[in-house]
Amino acid sequence: MFEKPAPADHPILDLLARRWSTRSFADRPVDREMVASLFEAARWAPSSGNGQPWSFLVATKDNPAEHERMASVLVPGNAWAHKAPVLALSVAALDRGDKTNRHAYHDVGLATENLVIQAHSMGLAIHMMAGFNVDMAREVFEIPVRHDPVTMIAIGYPGHPDSLPEDLRKKDLAPRQRKLIREFVFTGKFGQPAALE
Amino acid sequence: MFEKPAPADHPILDLLARRWSTRSFADRPVDREMVASLFEAARWAPSSGNGQPWSFLVATKDNPAEHERMASVLVPGNAWAHKAPVLALSVAALDRGDKTNRHAYHDVGLATENLVIQAHSMGLAIHMMAGFNVDMAREVFEIPVRHDPVTMIAIGYPGHPDSLPEDLRKKDLAPRQRKLIREFVFTGKFGQPAALE
Repeated sequence: MFEKPAPADHPILDLLARRWSTRSFADRPVDREMVASLFEAARWAPSSGNGQPWSFLVATKDNPAEHERMASVLVPGNAWAHKAPVLALSVAALDRGDKTNRHAYHDVGLATENLVIQAHSMGLAIHMMAGFNVDMAREVFEIPVRHDPVTMIAIGYPGHPDSLPEDLRKKDLAPRQRKLIREFVFTGKFGQPAALE
Repeated sequence: MFEKPAPADHPILDLLARRWSTRSFADRPVDREMVASLFEAARWAPSSGNGQPWSFLVATKDNPAEHERMASVLVPGNAWAHKAPVLALSVAALDRGDKTNRHAYHDVGLATENLVIQAHSMGLAIHMMAGFNVDMAREVFEIPVRHDPVTMIAIGYPGHPDSLPEDLRKKDLAPRQRKLIREFVFTGKFGQPAALE
């Protein structure tokens, strides 16, 4: 199995360091019970006022027509994701009661990261995608008003980057890069690095 | 130590099940190296196009004036959070390049949940709060335009709910509740439960 652990500057959980977003999925189904555990993990995420503004559409290759329907909303650049045996779409409820929930997208992110970490702990890989047709997703899945399709999620056992076409293989093999902590952790005022290093 | 594990219907990581948001913090500082690990965990979260739209303001009781300044933006109902030795504020960058990033809040959520899980793995507790004065936070911390203060975060070693005033103690001791999976995981169309149970 190909791994790409984060070159972390401070110790972090192995599970968080080993998480990464491959474009290569193995030709192997994911048990329904494992899929249930993914959403169970999302379920127990925190949210503002316990509003739980997340929901998910899910499609597996057990139902090829449904899987193809979900794959059809992806942009052509994400054609590699058709191979993932499980596809999901996160949806944010924009209101809580009669008020706009300014944390709707944020809380969908909290829940989705729980799902991502649960997946990696079970040997699965996840790749989230912004690249899909939001209007088409809304129509295809009859997403109600004041709900937004947020992110498409490819889920499956990881393959090997060498199985990918050359352009995608390069992306999968590229080193992992992030801003330095001093570039995004501040104290006193925005832009003033906290003394953590 | 008081625990409140999630009554999960499907197996999930112990770390995710044991995470919960207490209002009770122990009178014990958090090492700087541990604080660095929290933000290191956030650092390696995934984001749309690796845009990393998150930043954080942080204040610890090592600098009481700075800690007090951050606590001052909380609403009165979150006064219990003043006791947390570390406070943070997440900030979302709303643009990526010259385009609006519709995943800004979502990706701040992904990074923050990494931080939350890292914290719990080290024996720390976290409580995120929507209850703060957003405009005041913007002014106090000189948050630039096209950046939004998102969530205040109380961080520290957990105390015991019995140390809390009665109204907060009741909240801390209340059973954990979530929607059922069939209420938020759908297939085919929004609202149609996926057969996962």
